[in-house]
Amino acid sequence: MADPLVISIDAMGGDHGPSIVLPGVAKALQSHPAKGLRFLLHGDLAAMRAVLSSVPRLAEVCELRPSEGVISMDAKPAHAMRRGKGTSMWNAVDSVRTGEARAAVSAGNTGALMAIGRLLLRTAGNLDRPALVANWPTLRGVTSVLDVGANVNCDAERLVQFAIMGAAYHRAIHHTARPTVGILNVGTETEKGHEEVRSADRLLRELELDLAYLGFVEGDGIAKGVADVIVTDGFTGNVAVKTAEGLARFFRTELRQTLTESLLARAGALIARGALRRMSARLDPGAINGGPFLGLNGIVVKSHGSADARGFATAIRLAANLAGSDFVGEIAQHLTRSAAEGSAPIRERTVA
Amino acid sequence: MADPLVISIDAMGGDHGPSIVLPGVAKALQSHPAKGLRFLLHGDLAAMRAVLSSVPRLAEVCELRPSEGVISMDAKPAHAMRRGKGTSMWNAVDSVRTGEARAAVSAGNTGALMAIGRLLLRTAGNLDRPALVANWPTLRGVTSVLDVGANVNCDAERLVQFAIMGAAYHRAIHHTARPTVGILNVGTETEKGHEEVRSADRLLRELELDLAYLGFVEGDGIAKGVADVIVTDGFTGNVAVKTAEGLARFFRTELRQTLTESLLARAGALIARGALRRMSARLDPGAINGGPFLGLNGIVVKSHGSADARGFATAIRLAANLAGSDFVGEIAQHLTRSAAEGSAPIRERTVA
Repeated sequence: MADPLVISIDAMGGDHGPSIVLPGVAKALQSHPAKGLRFLLHGDLAAMRAVLSSVPRLAEVCELRPSEGVISMDAKPAHAMRRGKGTSMWNAVDSVRTGEARAAVSAGNTGALMAIGRLLLRTAGNLDRPALVANWPTLRGVTSVLDVGANVNCDAERLVQFAIMGAAYHRAIHHTARPTVGILNVGTETEKGHEEVRSADRLLRELELDLAYLGFVEGDGIAKGVADVIVTDGFTGNVAVKTAEGLARFFRTELRQTLTESLLARAGALIARGALRRMSARLDPGAINGGPFLGLNGIVVKSHGSADARGFATAIRLAANLAGSDFVGEIAQHLTRSAAEGSAPIRERTVA
Repeated sequence: MADPLVISIDAMGGDHGPSIVLPGVAKALQSHPAKGLRFLLHGDLAAMRAVLSSVPRLAEVCELRPSEGVISMDAKPAHAMRRGKGTSMWNAVDSVRTGEARAAVSAGNTGALMAIGRLLLRTAGNLDRPALVANWPTLRGVTSVLDVGANVNCDAERLVQFAIMGAAYHRAIHHTARPTVGILNVGTETEKGHEEVRSADRLLRELELDLAYLGFVEGDGIAKGVADVIVTDGFTGNVAVKTAEGLARFFRTELRQTLTESLLARAGALIARGALRRMSARLDPGAINGGPFLGLNGIVVKSHGSADARGFATAIRLAANLAGSDFVGEIAQHLTRSAAEGSAPIRERTVA
């Protein structure tokens, strides 16, 4: 392999650490055999070796990098920045900074990962914080929803940046030439919602950003797939994505109870089990796991803390696909251009 | 019947007008035969009579009130307030103001209904706008989520008022002595989220409001049923409830496709059809339809514009249950008390 694609892994992150992360790496490798994937595994050597011995052929493509300590799932971002140096998460991101790896994947603490990513890789353009994307399955495919948690307060300028970054991300992953973009709001008419969304809507109509901007979309438009990219502040986005997770769990529980509540129901479920299994696989949260931070000068993908090996493998595949595209460069270029062309009017209008 | 419970109905509201509303009234009547329900139907006489003749026994308990014009589903609230006088929606609410009816139900334009309710009935305490509640089915029962659309911007004081009103509403409907209350946020730790939710959290801990306050809850906590009442600003709440509606539609579509995709799947679904039908009835949006505006000096219930007759009947039953309780008086009393005791500290702290 002349030019292997190296991915840096926080082996200690998430609810389960190496016992899930390493089998996840193995699964990702199986489904990307031709890509020449290689991995830098950052973590406790003994813990990693203990798992590695039971996962066939993984050791050949992995290099183990010892690290000290783990950032806990409830650590505050500021603490992670001050004290996180040398931990598995820190070193995983640092491998991207040094150029040894093309992307990093961690199932650890989201706030800490964002803070460390921002510190080590810095943000593109005049962006303050990166945005976290969710890949949302819809009736028409997958919609990229951002921000889902990194930026609790967002002004209009920030929402415009999310639109630019979301479109570049969606294009890189789904190869849609001009992804459609909408802003999440409480109604579709231009006068609906608060000042931030109305200003962002005006800006996206007035600035010439080469975006297929659709206007406002409502919450039920997400699962309908009315836009390829849906932009919102990190508070609303986080609530929406977690509300959806809760509801998905509610439906799975209801369906399971329904199909076991009587002998007839059990018999029916047994006969239809092939179709039900295919649905279950289609709706498996593991199949859509992995949210990258957009706007960093490097690729960092966050896996769900409770993801299983299949879910972690999905996050790795996403990182590998992003590493094979130029979306980081594209985002940096667009943000710089929009800052040069549009920043003055953006600032004037959002203050007005 | 010595003391009939009179409900005022906007017969022209919603996507379908009298053709759905009047059969809805008939269904509500069937399930409340002992209550001595009577109705004032506001709308176009000819249109109402045309439907009434085909719904047996309904005419006996209905009084028709002619009105002029209908507020369109996309009219702006300000326009509805200026020009809405004499319409079916206006007159339905006005019957509550005059004391002729104990509650009003409309499937019309939400913003217009809120504005007309506020104008004719006025709000309790120092409340600016009423809050709209959603009855959210959960793994443990039903959670009352508010505000889901009336107040796009909410400061901490408003969120505290929602907590007070939500608890009174939940008690009136579900007869829980001390409903538990949570604030929707992006995490459960006290330092998470924006200033408004953090101030509201502090206030609910410090003010002695006789509430079973639990702290912050995340989006996935809604469907889990972690609290009886979940409080949020109208922007986030509206997005959450519509996101959930969209996802529910997505799951129904997936399940229907799954159970018709092959002969085996069809056979299984046929055998399990009893259980599947019971699930479908349990999760029917019509079974949870109807959101009251809390904080008005009177009962106004909003039905979904696209509700069918069964759904409209649910909204009427909700109005009848509320009319049989003293929750309007309780809310007014609590809001006045909290304004007297707590308003000064609330204002100081939210400015700080």
